[in-house]
Amino acid sequence: MAKSRFEYVRTYEQDAILLPNTYIVIRLDGRGFHRFSTHYNFRKPNDKRALCLMNAAAKQVMRHIPDVAGAYGQSDEYSFVLSRECTMFDRREAKLVSTFASTFTAQYQFLWPEYFPDTPLDGNMLPSFDGRAVLYPSLREVRDYFSWRQADCHINNLYNTSFWTLVLTGGSSEHDAEQALMGTNSGEKNELLFSRFGINYNNEEIMYRKGTMLIRDVGAGGSASASETTESKDVGEKSKRQVEREKNKRRKAEIVELHVDVIGDEFWTDAGRWIS
Amino acid sequence: MAKSRFEYVRTYEQDAILLPNTYIVIRLDGRGFHRFSTHYNFRKPNDKRALCLMNAAAKQVMRHIPDVAGAYGQSDEYSFVLSRECTMFDRREAKLVSTFASTFTAQYQFLWPEYFPDTPLDGNMLPSFDGRAVLYPSLREVRDYFSWRQADCHINNLYNTSFWTLVLTGGSSEHDAEQALMGTNSGEKNELLFSRFGINYNNEEIMYRKGTMLIRDVGAGGSASASETTESKDVGEKSKRQVEREKNKRRKAEIVELHVDVIGDEFWTDAGRWIS
Amino acid sequence: MAKSRFEYVRTYEQDAILLPNTYIVIRLDGRGFHRFSTHYNFRKPNDKRALCLMNAAAKQVMRHIPDVAGAYGQSDEYSFVLSRECTMFDRREAKLVSTFASTFTAQYQFLWPEYFPDTPLDGNMLPSFDGRAVLYPSLREVRDYFSWRQADCHINNLYNTSFWTLVLTGGSSEHDAEQALMGTNSGEKNELLFSRFGINYNNEEIMYRKGTMLIRDVGAGGSASASETTESKDVGEKSKRQVEREKNKRRKAEIVELHVDVIGDEFWTDAGRWIS
Amino acid sequence: MAKSRFEYVRTYEQDAILLPNTYIVIRLDGRGFHRFSTHYNFRKPNDKRALCLMNAAAKQVMRHIPDVAGAYGQSDEYSFVLSRECTMFDRREAKLVSTFASTFTAQYQFLWPEYFPDTPLDGNMLPSFDGRAVLYPSLREVRDYFSWRQADCHINNLYNTSFWTLVLTGGSSEHDAEQALMGTNSGEKNELLFSRFGINYNNEEIMYRKGTMLIRDVGAGGSASASETTESKDVGEKSKRQVEREKNKRRKAEIVELHVDVIGDEFWTDAGRWIS
Repeated sequence: MAKSRFEYVRTYEQDAILLPNTYIVIRLDGRGFHRFSTHYNFRKPNDKRALCLMNAAAKQVMRHIPDVAGAYGQSDEYSFVLSRECTMFDRREAKLVSTFASTFTAQYQFLWPEYFPDTPLDGNMLPSFDGRAVLYPSLREVRDYFSWRQADCHINNLYNTSFWTLVLTGGSSEHDAEQALMGTNSGEKNELLFSRFGINYNNEEIMYRKGTMLIRDVGAGGSASASETTESKDVGEKSKRQVEREKNKRRKAEIVELHVDVIGDEFWTDAGRWIS
Repeated sequence: MAKSRFEYVRTYEQDAILLPNTYIVIRLDGRGFHRFSTHYNFRKPNDKRALCLMNAAAKQVMRHIPDVAGAYGQSDEYSFVLSRECTMFDRREAKLVSTFASTFTAQYQFLWPEYFPDTPLDGNMLPSFDGRAVLYPSLREVRDYFSWRQADCHINNLYNTSFWTLVLTGGSSEHDAEQALMGTNSGEKNELLFSRFGINYNNEEIMYRKGTMLIRDVGAGGSASASETTESKDVGEKSKRQVEREKNKRRKAEIVELHVDVIGDEFWTDAGRWIS
Repeated sequence: MAKSRFEYVRTYEQDAILLPNTYIVIRLDGRGFHRFSTHYNFRKPNDKRALCLMNAAAKQVMRHIPDVAGAYGQSDEYSFVLSRECTMFDRREAKLVSTFASTFTAQYQFLWPEYFPDTPLDGNMLPSFDGRAVLYPSLREVRDYFSWRQADCHINNLYNTSFWTLVLTGGSSEHDAEQALMGTNSGEKNELLFSRFGINYNNEEIMYRKGTMLIRDVGAGGSASASETTESKDVGEKSKRQVEREKNKRRKAEIVELHVDVIGDEFWTDAGRWIS
Repeated sequence: MAKSRFEYVRTYEQDAILLPNTYIVIRLDGRGFHRFSTHYNFRKPNDKRALCLMNAAAKQVMRHIPDVAGAYGQSDEYSFVLSRECTMFDRREAKLVSTFASTFTAQYQFLWPEYFPDTPLDGNMLPSFDGRAVLYPSLREVRDYFSWRQADCHINNLYNTSFWTLVLTGGSSEHDAEQALMGTNSGEKNELLFSRFGINYNNEEIMYRKGTMLIRDVGAGGSASASETTESKDVGEKSKRQVEREKNKRRKAEIVELHVDVIGDEFWTDAGRWIS
């Protein structure tokens, strides 16, 4: 039973460490959610219960993992951004990504009955999520990351809204709806919705159009730590006590749910209050 | 809404690809399971319900992911070994690790009421698991990996059995039990159990002493693919159809639960029937 | 001068470790050798001096780095294969790759006057080589790697021989030669060389057609360590003394230069004597 | 000769890509330079010829690789910092590190006779350098990196100056000198040099005490690109033409050799003119 004779296998473990002082974005994606949403009869083009469940699960993740500064979700995906000082798991990539995937899954499943009270989960069709981590050296890129996801939300939602309106209201077959939309730009889809169905896309529910941003609001005076500029001075200098104090602040901070434009400047003018 | 303006952030994504033609071992570990097991009053030193739940969840993972050849579990950990030809997710590390963590979590939680019918889960104390992937170039190392985990199981279980017998049967305080065991070797622990409590450790339940090995038994004639030697000839040559055929065979194969010694030669003499 | 205040920058260093028990192939490529060969008037399609210089430099690398089992060179590239037990620099990728590039460069430049006695090097056009490391878990892949490089050598050399014969002997312009060869297969190029210029390609110098294989011949009885099969048993078990003994054997072994087919089986039947 | 049959081995190549928008520092270290310097009778504690040769080689590297913004050298090491926009070799780590090691080696060897006219190189003792790449997300860390190396230079040079003064001037054995210095701090070493040998350490040649900083001075109005702050806005937005223009500016810029303090603020107040 000499354990030591076998322990050499540990030398094959290679922990990828995420570069210090960079923002970590962890994006989770529903696995096979096309089949999943069909199985549980999600409403088209958007199922409010499903989106709210995603948001609720993400909030729970933020409550349990104080290193998360903010998160953005749309459709079956959620992205969590960790502050650049984050040292959770010594920034080991596999542990971080797997923990987020596992924790989110657990919360999603636990909260399911609250959002789908009449639809029990089926053991052969449980929700699961895969994940990945991406590093961004500056706040500018984090901002552009969220803009990228929100632009993606817009494009997909406008398409899906047009498609399902054609099918469900217009009576088109799915194939005909696809043909009708092929090659159309945003303006043409807006026009189609309005002229044929009297739908002003901009009046559609804002959560569908903009997705959901969750921030941990540490308050006006507070600031998650400091401004971009100041903070870069702090590298390697911030005391452990200070880090601990900020962590506590984040832990206690209210998690705010927003459905706003994150592409323009406004949302980011006061970003220092939630991300550092 | 020019999505393209932001898409440069994708260039920051770096997919770690696991080296082809190596065995992939994915090990999941319960997060904070000390607290978790206390919260749900797990029996000491082993809670059969909890171990059987781990095994049941692992079996479900194997059912849903045919690339898994076998798995070994003990305590709050489970290791899954994927065949060296595995191309799931193009062998992207983050996707693999997060998917295993997420799928296992979902199954563990779903099956919980079956094993703990009187103990509903608490939303603030949900089970979660982190994961990691390790690569092994040869079957010898995979074998030594499982031996390492089983030796670990033995060492921990002998200690825990002695400790909890001292506490629960012998009436020691936890502190005194710890002191009594400090520095003792295996023989001394065996002796203590026998002389003071009449317990022959070797008669303790074998699942506690050996852990659980799950293999996908593709049958005698079958073989998971081929012997180590033959297979190395096949690199890059095995046809897609052949790969698909083997995958189907694995999918249909019965998953067998074993509580056996995996350190000695016997278990491995016919390894070709479940791992390739 | 508090050094410690700045030492945190070391935590940003991330050493990629090459997976243990895999063969390491390090391939060096001449940087900008098209320009380089023009600058120094290399003969076309092959400059024997330049190829022999590559071989001589590679031999010196093997003399200085006993971990190299063998090497294959053609054109301006050289690939070195390290035994799977290699622990040089603890298998740190950057140190390995840079050391091979640096050592090869130094030798190439030092030996230059021996092969180009009338052509002094110009400080603004010095030879340099970039490198990369690739891992192969089994000998089969190493063999296929060398086959890949030799097939590449064949394809390029047949093309270049045809091209330069058309230009230098046939008086074609480079443009016309390119046009003439476009889309031709091997048989057609052989035919063109033979019918128009009376050249039997198979009589061309074998070093041009096959490239150069360097092996460290540890002798018949010897074997670089053991056969593929046996060796895999040895993982983690080979004693330090044994490793040292084999290293010494390799250090003293003669380096043999071969111009042979490495694609067929013959070259590999006795591979155990130089690679392990 | 079916090349394609073997090409699968390419799928084992894994290019590590250095995270975009981070500074890349490539540090080269002389391999076995203790033996090397003894072999060629380098003067102790500093051989001016050897240090100037290092500087000359580094300057040539900067001339040939315009992506280098600056470099710092001391003893047998040289660190090159690449601007954060650098896209050389698509930021592939192995190619970058090996190219720097190879180019530096070639230049060092080529320039050798200029600095050691009476000491021809010996083919069995050629200079070689290994390398590594480190990423820094902000200018603050780059600054701290150079401070770290300069503090290291100071500590080593003060020690070496004291040691060799004791040996060469004081007539101590090497063993006694080592003993005498064991546990002494900077002040005590300064005092020893002054009281016993009348040497004011601060009057020692500044290149020995501070090392050598090489910057590519693009001129006052110029700026390597822009200030830290501005530039972070430019991520993903800088036009190709602009990048090309800056590259040309760098290519033409004079390379300035400095022996100054890089730990204090002064050197960095106008850093924008050489690093971006």
